[in-house]
Amino acid sequence: MKHNFGAGPCILPQEVFKEASNAVLNFNDTGLSILEISHRSKEFEEVIAEAERLVRELLRVPQNYSILFLQGGASQQFAMVPMNLLKEGGKAAYLDTGVWASKAAKEASKIGKIEIVASSSDSNYNYIPKNFEIPSDVDYFHYTSNNTIYGTEVFDKPKTNVPTVVDMSSDIFSRDIDVSEYDLIYAGAQKNMGPAGVTLVIVKDEILGKTSRIIPSIFDYHAHIKAASMYNTPPTFAIYTSLLNLRWLKAKGGITVMEQENIIKARALYDEIDRNPFFKGTAAKEDRSRMNVTFVMETPELEAEFLALSKERNLIGIKGHRSVGGFRASIYNALTLSSVNALVDAMKEFEDSKNKA
Amino acid sequence: MKHNFGAGPCILPQEVFKEASNAVLNFNDTGLSILEISHRSKEFEEVIAEAERLVRELLRVPQNYSILFLQGGASQQFAMVPMNLLKEGGKAAYLDTGVWASKAAKEASKIGKIEIVASSSDSNYNYIPKNFEIPSDVDYFHYTSNNTIYGTEVFDKPKTNVPTVVDMSSDIFSRDIDVSEYDLIYAGAQKNMGPAGVTLVIVKDEILGKTSRIIPSIFDYHAHIKAASMYNTPPTFAIYTSLLNLRWLKAKGGITVMEQENIIKARALYDEIDRNPFFKGTAAKEDRSRMNVTFVMETPELEAEFLALSKERNLIGIKGHRSVGGFRASIYNALTLSSVNALVDAMKEFEDSKNKA
Repeated sequence: MKHNFGAGPCILPQEVFKEASNAVLNFNDTGLSILEISHRSKEFEEVIAEAERLVRELLRVPQNYSILFLQGGASQQFAMVPMNLLKEGGKAAYLDTGVWASKAAKEASKIGKIEIVASSSDSNYNYIPKNFEIPSDVDYFHYTSNNTIYGTEVFDKPKTNVPTVVDMSSDIFSRDIDVSEYDLIYAGAQKNMGPAGVTLVIVKDEILGKTSRIIPSIFDYHAHIKAASMYNTPPTFAIYTSLLNLRWLKAKGGITVMEQENIIKARALYDEIDRNPFFKGTAAKEDRSRMNVTFVMETPELEAEFLALSKERNLIGIKGHRSVGGFRASIYNALTLSSVNALVDAMKEFEDSKNKA
Repeated sequence: MKHNFGAGPCILPQEVFKEASNAVLNFNDTGLSILEISHRSKEFEEVIAEAERLVRELLRVPQNYSILFLQGGASQQFAMVPMNLLKEGGKAAYLDTGVWASKAAKEASKIGKIEIVASSSDSNYNYIPKNFEIPSDVDYFHYTSNNTIYGTEVFDKPKTNVPTVVDMSSDIFSRDIDVSEYDLIYAGAQKNMGPAGVTLVIVKDEILGKTSRIIPSIFDYHAHIKAASMYNTPPTFAIYTSLLNLRWLKAKGGITVMEQENIIKARALYDEIDRNPFFKGTAAKEDRSRMNVTFVMETPELEAEFLALSKERNLIGIKGHRSVGGFRASIYNALTLSSVNALVDAMKEFEDSKNKA
């Protein structure tokens, strides 16, 4: 059995793979594949309705928020957010905590004026800036809650009275949040929600319709809300598999149970990093992500040796992103504690072998 | 066994369903699901490269055209085409042959100036306008090659010297085309290419980069070409399943073989419609689609009776679109001649039962 620590598209529960695989052959005993049923069929309408209901239930989404399943990933939201929320002549504030946060700001700057309120680019984004000021006259404030590449996470929403937009692609459904604190949440599915190809958007209805910018309907949240995510043919299989995963999450006990498991998994790994003299965490301790654990070793030679050992131990996807180097272990919801323990064991084994040598 | 005449997402070959289902459990003997492998992995890079190669081979795409796998369906192309090709102060020409053609024009009009060169809306789009003039000073001419709702198809590219953009969502890979006649071809996958969630774009490189409009990278064909369809996380499963389908198409003998089969299938059905006094085709004979066959009956009561008989005979998805009424049998590549024959048999059976009554 392989332990998949990949950063995304990433591991989902084995039960989800099994059910999705069955549905490709015979969906809900219809005698048809999930891939060949119409999105306008009663069967698929039930899929998307249940998926929406589960998102609402699991995250306790208030009634004055709409839930959308779109395409194009977080990258498309980088453009759609300013197209829909940035007034002509207005300004938006962005927090720069990494490559994705920075791209979001760059794309928004093609639509209107933006201001970077703080950045940790000075130290390769290994911490989350604090005590920055968010201007009160901006149309919205945008940040990225989890930075997959650098292994940092923002657990508390920065204080501000302006509408807040957050990219939760890599930590949504991993911990409890109060949706009412946010005005728009978006997330590419391919970490904790489902396979690549669908994007979740949760938007407070009243923040829409405040710009006079004329935009194509496909980029207009209103058009998607009006059509209940069926403005055009939705990515049916990706939504169905997300539904399977949301059902799994609910059956596990929901997000608070998941969060407890994630805390335990992250602690097990960080404890070993801090204890084992061969490894060193790269992110500031107080900002350590529970989803992506980044660490390095003294020399490239040691790293190559540990990578080889990991491979032998079926630990895959742990090579770090080139901009940080070393290792990144992504420990999303579906990655089990026993997989984390397998990695910790390999780290101990490595230490032992070196001490004996 | 069910005969799936649905308009899309639609039937794909049973072999494709089987292989896709297997890959959700164990992709290429990696021990991993296709849903959990990184789009940056060697394994997935081979998937997307082979898919591109097969598109190029099957459609004989010239080297000066790029092939892209994007998200958002044809509806997103309605916006991306003018964003990328319509110059500021320029104009584009659109042919109006149905709801989708009309939507494409409407979305383009939010970006720049457009002109409708001809329309068949006067007779509920039951024919393709001919002998219209395309101004020579427009940036491009756009049309829809197959109109799923009305059952009409444009087999010959309208003559013009201006760059031509065509929405081939519902007839691509169904018949031989000369790609070099076109400047941009796009197609939502969910008819003859694969499952919903991926969009094919074939674009002649030299038509790009001629507007100075600043657009978000995610909507910029150049950004996707530069990144070989990996500007952001692609819809991995939809692309993989499309690859399986393209392999099937090649193994069948390619597009000319497919086209011959499609001609035979369409003829069998249209012949019965023309012969059987209980049924009447809705599209002008010379413009009849080979993909979507639309027909009606004398009264709503007869239609309800035939629909009930079809259900008994496992013929599904044949109810017509509300704007045409009656029936629509979609006979895409993967729908077999034996399924068409099952429908023809039901039509004969219906006639017999009425004649005996």
